[in-house]
Order: sequence, then structure tokens, then C-alpha cells
Amino acid sequence: MTPGPGDLDALRRRIDAADRRLIELLAERRDLVAEVGRFKTDHGTPVYVPEREAALLEARRAEAAAAGVSADLVEDLLRRIMRESYRAEGRHGFRCVLDDPAPVAIVGGAGAMGRLLGDHFTRSGYEVRVLDADDWPRVDDLLRDAGLVLVSVPIHDTVSVVRRLGPHLPPGAVLADITSRKAGPLDAMLAAHQGPVRALHPMFGPTVGTLAKQVVVDCGGRDPDASGWLLDQFAVWGARTVAVAAPEHDRAMAVVQALRHFTTFCYGVHLAGEDVDLATILSISSPIYRLELAMTGRLFAQDASLYADIIFDSTEGLALAERYLARLQDAVALYRAGDREGFRRRFRETRDWFGPLAATFLAESDTLLAQARDRIDHI
Amino acid sequence: MTPGPGDLDALRRRIDAADRRLIELLAERRDLVAEVGRFKTDHGTPVYVPEREAALLEARRAEAAAAGVSADLVEDLLRRIMRESYRAEGRHGFRCVLDDPAPVAIVGGAGAMGRLLGDHFTRSGYEVRVLDADDWPRVDDLLRDAGLVLVSVPIHDTVSVVRRLGPHLPPGAVLADITSRKAGPLDAMLAAHQGPVRALHPMFGPTVGTLAKQVVVDCGGRDPDASGWLLDQFAVWGARTVAVAAPEHDRAMAVVQALRHFTTFCYGVHLAGEDVDLATILSISSPIYRLELAMTGRLFAQDASLYADIIFDSTEGLALAERYLARLQDAVALYRAGDREGFRRRFRETRDWFGPLAATFLAESDTLLAQARDRIDHI
Repeated sequence: MTPGPGDLDALRRRIDAADRRLIELLAERRDLVAEVGRFKTDHGTPVYVPEREAALLEARRAEAAAAGVSADLVEDLLRRIMRESYRAEGRHGFRCVLDDPAPVAIVGGAGAMGRLLGDHFTRSGYEVRVLDADDWPRVDDLLRDAGLVLVSVPIHDTVSVVRRLGPHLPPGAVLADITSRKAGPLDAMLAAHQGPVRALHPMFGPTVGTLAKQVVVDCGGRDPDASGWLLDQFAVWGARTVAVAAPEHDRAMAVVQALRHFTTFCYGVHLAGEDVDLATILSISSPIYRLELAMTGRLFAQDASLYADIIFDSTEGLALAERYLARLQDAVALYRAGDREGFRRRFRETRDWFGPLAATFLAESDTLLAQARDRIDHI
Repeated sequence: MTPGPGDLDALRRRIDAADRRLIELLAERRDLVAEVGRFKTDHGTPVYVPEREAALLEARRAEAAAAGVSADLVEDLLRRIMRESYRAEGRHGFRCVLDDPAPVAIVGGAGAMGRLLGDHFTRSGYEVRVLDADDWPRVDDLLRDAGLVLVSVPIHDTVSVVRRLGPHLPPGAVLADITSRKAGPLDAMLAAHQGPVRALHPMFGPTVGTLAKQVVVDCGGRDPDASGWLLDQFAVWGARTVAVAAPEHDRAMAVVQALRHFTTFCYGVHLAGEDVDLATILSISSPIYRLELAMTGRLFAQDASLYADIIFDSTEGLALAERYLARLQDAVALYRAGDREGFRRRFRETRDWFGPLAATFLAESDTLLAQARDRIDHI
């Protein structure tokens, strides 16, 4: 017998009841995670333990498959739930990796990144002192007995601020910076300070809710043993450090930041110049174009000066941009000539250069685009 | 008393038990959804009902907040679970919107998009006939009594295929195409056929698992009442149609497809030309750059000829690319001159042009980037 409309309502009520039990389950899990968080704070276990996460996911995937439930579905859900857990675990504070921590002075500590890191140090039991533009008359007081002096100021101020700090630094303090250029600031730190030095670049912005799974690039400096605790402290917060030499880091950043932001800037200026009809475009866009548009538009919601600094302060950025322009001119010449065969040849050469990563990127972005589509409402 | 390591293991076992109950819950929900699917097939209720989804999410968000569970977490989980449901609901077939459906002939039906749509028609109870390049000698047999002749061939073949079909079309059949350019194919269809005509452009590729939440652009044609059932059938599959005039569609696509793919192509060629060290870049990349790299690399994992057609067959694409080149030249001139103030001025002008959408795009992409980060493993 074919069920009637009443049956659909009954089925939907049962689905709603199942979803309510999901919420109960999440509340129960949240309480368990809070206990884990308290335990980790007391014992100093890192927030993010890759092996535990991998083992948990593998076991649940197998159980899902055995129950006829999509293993990918279960993995996606658990990854999303764990993100919430990482945030929750930090609520009770973090372990301090030092037995007797000296104060941490953050130069530029009132800025967004300075506040984020200051908050993490405070929640880990460090005394945090902020040295901002107005505080130079008190610099000796603020740096007295400091174990770490962390420079968190705009890119184009970093070298001058480091020089100005030099005479005031306690000899044994670790001097570190978090600027997105590394060679110049590292040289300046080594010149300004005779004690331990560490050049870092956190690969995240101040709006991340948790440092779990974030990357901090470590370009070294002087006397690494004396500042090893700083990397350990980042590990407790869930971040990992990747060691890369400063010049190599700067070359990579010219591509990742300067050139990419520059081309995104040009694309946004072009859309505005064409005065394209965004409403029509959004109404008919596939998730992929909406995402690409969002990746362009998000730049312009941010600070013009920050992006001016990232682009104009890059040592290799201009040369990269000039060569990009030359390649675009070549490609437009192909287009003008209607040379499809030339286009396809360069397309295939570029595919060969990407190698197996092209297919990896396709699969990876497909997963994300499916997530983007989950969020689309017709209303 | 501080708990010991044994307590951490005990807590983790309880978390694992909770996660196993999540799997049981998903299995139970899957069975309920399968019953809903059977009901919808029998009664022809569309797979995706926006109001039901919105009401469900709102109710669960409120309940989550009341239980002290993140409402965003619950919404993200339910959206992901519902994606699985939409796929599952189609497994039992779809309702046919016609009482007595005539055969559907798909020209180019052996291609990826032709197969995807053919499969949906078949699962909805239509007799599907495929007319591929080798089948022209049998064209009259294949089109006999067809209620719909759907043209699904490469862009540059569409007009010639439509002309060739003309003399063989049953007078009352709906002639429709799914090419990504619309003005030319629509004119060709109106000239080749005296019966109902409908120019469509599905804004998705053949790899989508479900048509739920996908968009089909409808550029109209002739005698819309006679082909309204086709749009109804797309609605049963979960897709929505958006009506846009053909010239307006083509202008939007020049931006969304031709120009965007062209600049992505140039960026990939540039990365290959610079021979950038992808391994280093990936090891230190933030999720945002990894995503941007993936959006570039994914292009090259696909068909060179398809992208050559999309770019070279666009009527306005070349003019757009020429103007983009001019704007890039201006921006490089700013860069060369070190004119930060000029950069910031254009940045702000472009922000003003995006208007409130810039902030929307920032928030939207932040959500997606957090999802990208969920998937990052340190191993």
C-alpha cells in the first residue's frame, strides 16, 4: 500500500526526533571534551594530537562502513565536531611549558595579532606586558626581566622597531618577531640583540578561533635551544612549526602573498571597472564561481594598508608581477590570434608541471565545493 | 584531586562510545530518509524542499542553543547529513512529472553531461535514446515519437548539430540544448524547429553526485507552456531554474567562465614558468593559499579542449581579456612607481563597488576556510 501525506509527516517527525538526539549526543560529548580539556591543562598534553585524531577517524570510518553508513560522511562530521572540541579545550587555559615563566613583552601588543597571541600567553599562565606606540617612555620598565620580547608590528615598521628596542633588551631574553617578511627582520634582530633570536611567521590571521592545526614558519635565528620552549608552547596551543630558511621563506611568500594578492587586487579592480552585474552573476553562479568571487571580494573587506605593505614590501614581488604581465600579454596574443592549438599546448605543459598534484587539487576542491553547496539556500 | 593518565584513556573511551552512537543514529536516520525517498517517488514530492530544510534547521538551531551546544555546529552537521540524504532519496528513482511520457532523445548522450541527464530521465521512468556521432544514419528511428530532443554536444558543434537535426525533428517535440553559450544556439534552434524550443544552461558539471541545490539557467525559447514539464522535472531532481535572457546570460558567462578561466590559465602558466617550489609552498601554506592553489591546479586536471572552447567561443571574452590586460598594466605601473597611495585609493574604490557584499564574501569564505582547515592533517 502506498503511504499517504500523513505518513510523510510521521516520517519527518521521526527524523526530527533523531536530529534532537544528535543534539543531546553533542551536549554529552561537549561535557566529555571539557573534562579532557581540564586534564590536558593540568598535565600539559597538547590540544591537538594528530595520532589520536587519525586513529579515531580510522576506527569510526571502519565502523560506519560496517553499518552501511558513508565513511566520508562520518569523517566529515567528526572533523567538524573536533574543530569545536579544539576551541572548547582551550577555554580552561593551556599548560605553560615553563616551570617558572618570565614575563612576555609584546611590542605592538594592542594590534589584532598581538592581542591573539597575548591572550594565548595569558591563558597559559604568563605575565603579558604590552608595549604599544605610546609606551616607549616606559620601555625599560616593560622589558625588565622579560623572558620573551615578541615584535608584532606592521611589516614596514619591524626593522626600525627592532633597532629601537636593541639597547633596552635584557641580555638573556628571547627576541622574536612575527612579520611576514623574514630576511630583513632576522638580520635586524641579530644586529640589535646579542641573546637568543627567533624569526617566526604565523601563517594565519587574527580571526582564527583556535590555533589547532595552524602553521608557524620558523626561520631560526641564534641559540635555538634557548627559545625551543616557544615552539613547544605553540605546540601546546595546537599549532605546528615548519623550519624554512629566511630567504627561501621570502621567495615563497612573494608568490603566496605578494603576487597572489596583487592578481586578486587586479581582478577585483577589473570587475569594478566593467561594472559587472553582480546580482545576476550570483543568481546563476555555480558554487565554484561564487567561491572564486568570494575569494576576490574578501580581499577588499580587509585593510588596504596591510595589503599595500604585503605587496610593496615584498623584495621579489615586483619582478614576479612584471613577468606575470609578460605571460598575460603572450596569452592575450594567443587569444587574439584564435590560436586554440597554442592554448591547448601551454595547458598541457602546465598540467605536466603540476604533475599528480593537479588531480589531487581537483579532488580536494571538489570536496570543498560540495561543502559550499551544502550552504546554498534558495530563499 | 588531579586525574591521572588512566582517566584520559577512560574519557577517550567514553568519547569513542558517543561517536559510535552517532554512527547508529546516522544509520537510523538513513533508513527513515529511505522511506521518505520511497514516499517522494510515489507521490512526486520534490527531493529538495527549501522551506522544510529551513524550518528544520531553524528548529534544531534553537534547540542546540537551549542545550548549550553551538547552533552553527549543529547547522553545519545537519547540512552535511542532508547532502547525503538528497543523494540517497534518488536511489529509488524519481517521480516522472508526465502521466504518459514520450521518449527523450539525447544528442551527444554518450558524453559525460549527456549520461548524467540520461540517467536522471531513465530513473524517472522516461525511455532514453542516445544519438551519438555514429548514429546519424538512424536519426529518424531515434527521434520518432520523441517528446524531447536534448542537444548535449561541445559548444562549437552545437549550432551545426542543431541545423543538421532540423529536418528530422518531430513537429511537436521540445527541442532544447544545454550549451554554455545561449544566444547563437537559441537562434539556431528557433530557425531549425517550428515546435517548442527551450535554451538551458546547467550551472554544474557531470561530477556532481546529486542535482539537489544545483542551478539551471533558462533562457526561454518558444511556446514555454509546452516545455514547462521539463523545468518541473528538474525541480523533482532538486535543481532550480533561473530565467535570464540569452544575451544577458552570455555577457555574465564571459565574466564567469571565459575571463575567469583565462586568468586562472595565465596564473597556472606563470607558476609553471617560474617553476615555483610547490612542495615548500604547500608545507607552509595557510588554508586560503592552498585553496587558491587548488582552484588553479584543478583547471589543469580537466580537458584542455573544453576550456579552449569556453574561452575562444565566448563572444565578449577577448574584449574582456584585453581590458583586463590594460588594467593589469596600470597596476604594474603603480607597483613599479612604489605608489602605495594610488594602490590604496583603487583598493577603496573597489571596496565601495563591492559594497556590503565584500563583508558577506569575507564571512562566507571564512566559513569555508575553516572547513578546509578541518581536513588538514599533520602527517
